[in-house]
Amino acid sequence: MPYLNENYLKLQTGYLFPEVARRVREFCGANPKAAERLIRCGIGDVTEPLPRAAVEAMKQAVEELGHRETFRGYGPEHGYEFLRSTIARSDYRDRNIEIADDEIFISDGSKCDCGYILDVLGDQNKVAIPDPVYPVYVDTNVMAGHTGSGRKDGSYDGILYLRCTAENNFVPAPPKEHVDLVYLCFPNNPTGAVASRTQLSLWVDYALEQDALLLFDAAYEAYISEQNIPHSIFEIHGARECAIELRSFSKNGGFTGVRCGFTVMPKLLVARTENGRRFPLHPLWQRRWSTKSNSVSYPVQRGAEALYSQEGRKQVRALIDHYMGNAKLLCDAATDAGLEAFGGVDAPYIWVKTPDGLTSWEMFDRMLREINVVITPGAGFGAQGEGYFRISAFNNRENAEEVARRMRTLH
Amino acid sequence: MPYLNENYLKLQTGYLFPEVARRVREFCGANPKAAERLIRCGIGDVTEPLPRAAVEAMKQAVEELGHRETFRGYGPEHGYEFLRSTIARSDYRDRNIEIADDEIFISDGSKCDCGYILDVLGDQNKVAIPDPVYPVYVDTNVMAGHTGSGRKDGSYDGILYLRCTAENNFVPAPPKEHVDLVYLCFPNNPTGAVASRTQLSLWVDYALEQDALLLFDAAYEAYISEQNIPHSIFEIHGARECAIELRSFSKNGGFTGVRCGFTVMPKLLVARTENGRRFPLHPLWQRRWSTKSNSVSYPVQRGAEALYSQEGRKQVRALIDHYMGNAKLLCDAATDAGLEAFGGVDAPYIWVKTPDGLTSWEMFDRMLREINVVITPGAGFGAQGEGYFRISAFNNRENAEEVARRMRTLH
Repeated sequence: MPYLNENYLKLQTGYLFPEVARRVREFCGANPKAAERLIRCGIGDVTEPLPRAAVEAMKQAVEELGHRETFRGYGPEHGYEFLRSTIARSDYRDRNIEIADDEIFISDGSKCDCGYILDVLGDQNKVAIPDPVYPVYVDTNVMAGHTGSGRKDGSYDGILYLRCTAENNFVPAPPKEHVDLVYLCFPNNPTGAVASRTQLSLWVDYALEQDALLLFDAAYEAYISEQNIPHSIFEIHGARECAIELRSFSKNGGFTGVRCGFTVMPKLLVARTENGRRFPLHPLWQRRWSTKSNSVSYPVQRGAEALYSQEGRKQVRALIDHYMGNAKLLCDAATDAGLEAFGGVDAPYIWVKTPDGLTSWEMFDRMLREINVVITPGAGFGAQGEGYFRISAFNNRENAEEVARRMRTLH
Repeated sequence: MPYLNENYLKLQTGYLFPEVARRVREFCGANPKAAERLIRCGIGDVTEPLPRAAVEAMKQAVEELGHRETFRGYGPEHGYEFLRSTIARSDYRDRNIEIADDEIFISDGSKCDCGYILDVLGDQNKVAIPDPVYPVYVDTNVMAGHTGSGRKDGSYDGILYLRCTAENNFVPAPPKEHVDLVYLCFPNNPTGAVASRTQLSLWVDYALEQDALLLFDAAYEAYISEQNIPHSIFEIHGARECAIELRSFSKNGGFTGVRCGFTVMPKLLVARTENGRRFPLHPLWQRRWSTKSNSVSYPVQRGAEALYSQEGRKQVRALIDHYMGNAKLLCDAATDAGLEAFGGVDAPYIWVKTPDGLTSWEMFDRMLREINVVITPGAGFGAQGEGYFRISAFNNRENAEEVARRMRTLH
């Protein structure tokens, strides 16, 4: 009988969002009236239509595939040159960050890249992961066998958790001990926190000193409104020697159902073998893609490119402004309801302390029952998320206003 | 310094097709005149436009995403119900094969699935792989650490190679020894061979007896023209207890640049832990998808669905007939040129013995130089491919006719 990957058996409970969906389904089944007025502020999924520029570009690309003269089959495994160069220029070089076109790798989304990246890394790496954080970082490391067993609070042996609490404004400082691999996510999911230039510099210093690799998830960079907050880890001097950046078109262009993102893998990054030989990571990553993938759908890549056109940029800006308008409404309502709220300024998430010492799942159930609003329980993002919940600002204005109204009735 | 996955360092030379591309580039640079009349019959990439049904469905789906009322964000991680049920019904239940909708997992292509599937399997599995075969099976196992070092002939220690030669009509029989995991690919890439019902039954019997798992790659099933050749491993009694099937829309619907395929993972499949506990594989596979992916682009899934419409089926049929018409021309030309040719009847590939004891890369260079035709050297598919080359029938008719003409001038 074939052997299975036993690491999967260490995974605790279901992945967060399927569990949220299950509870909502159950509640709605039992309460059909309440179900009708249910508003979802749980999963961080966009609600507004795709930018018109992306729609037109994708339709045109599909039509191209319908004619012999313009048909395209397999594309380059690392993404089309037209998209790689547009990204490298617009997101980096135009902002004085030296990134080459062939350091950009197009993917079908950041979530996927989180898992893929472990393909090229060794099993010996000591890993540090913020707590709370997007659950995929931990779960993919569990699956890859980089952890020990699960603990009662949902954490795992063998991972160094970086506590993100109100005390450190949800931005952890580098640890005292050595680690090989550090996940960072700013603007943060779920807390909405951002790291200042100084805070990120401390991380880059740590990485250079400790020869560690930073995995910087910048999926939400488009939501940064404050001046002087870095949008990319590569704004920090030295980061090209120690960091990989993950980006997504899901939250700026609304591509959650279209699927496109990218990884920035600098050619300067070096990793080691057990016996100390050093190799650049870039060729390994390139090899991973050419062997395991045929890249992303051509029309999707054209859609992503269109987000960088003049029209596309304006439409993306309007989307971000819309969601951040919601964020302000929800933040204010939480505060008015006497709740302690964080985030919501540089990120589409509001991170709220549960009242009355409720656990976060208790608060989830209470919001569902009392005001028929779905939020995400903080504990689903890690042990330090216990006692918090996340409200997503991804919604239409009407719903955001209604949720704000209902939250003010909470007591 | 972070550790790298040292298994990548065992990989030999480049992945086949990039190496072919490199040689072609070099030749064309040095011979601009010959470059102008170059015809590519190398990589198995389609050339004809997408079926109109798929084009229209994709354009409509993109337009849906451009309106609030019909916008969709994250889809179900395992694929939309509309596509899973269409596949399970049309490809299986309508052909009297019992496959449930939720045993279908939508992916961005078979190549990707080949790698993904190893995520849920253990490292202890003893693996058998046909030789020659699609190089991704071997390379993904090398990357996952399931092999020893590479050998001079391109093979790896630790893999049991199933020799596919003219003597066994390129269909290997089950081995005498025990293995845990067997890759099978019919219609075969690169040899074009198909396995009869009896031959596949022997494999299913072997798998059931040895408690082995069959990974059955049926990416080319649409090209089967002979009656009585199974299109699916699940036509064989007992296969649901021992086989996973991979399918693709790349070669039937021309989706090589659109990216969509699927895995059939029966719920009856069981795998074991090191200490003998048994678990079904289906929930692990499901968990892999929900943790590591957000499924395939919505418009792409609508495009795939359209291939099953009445109009879509007719258009797919016309594509297959076109390519198989090319296959016949090329097969006949090879025979006329005094070459020994196999395949080309149930698959879009012709597998040809090199003349005059040439190696397959020598023959590659000769075809490139003498008749300016790109083929794929057999050795790129495994040690047993040495002394053969593959001609792909994926081309327009004019090119296929011209290649046939030029081949007759070979001597």
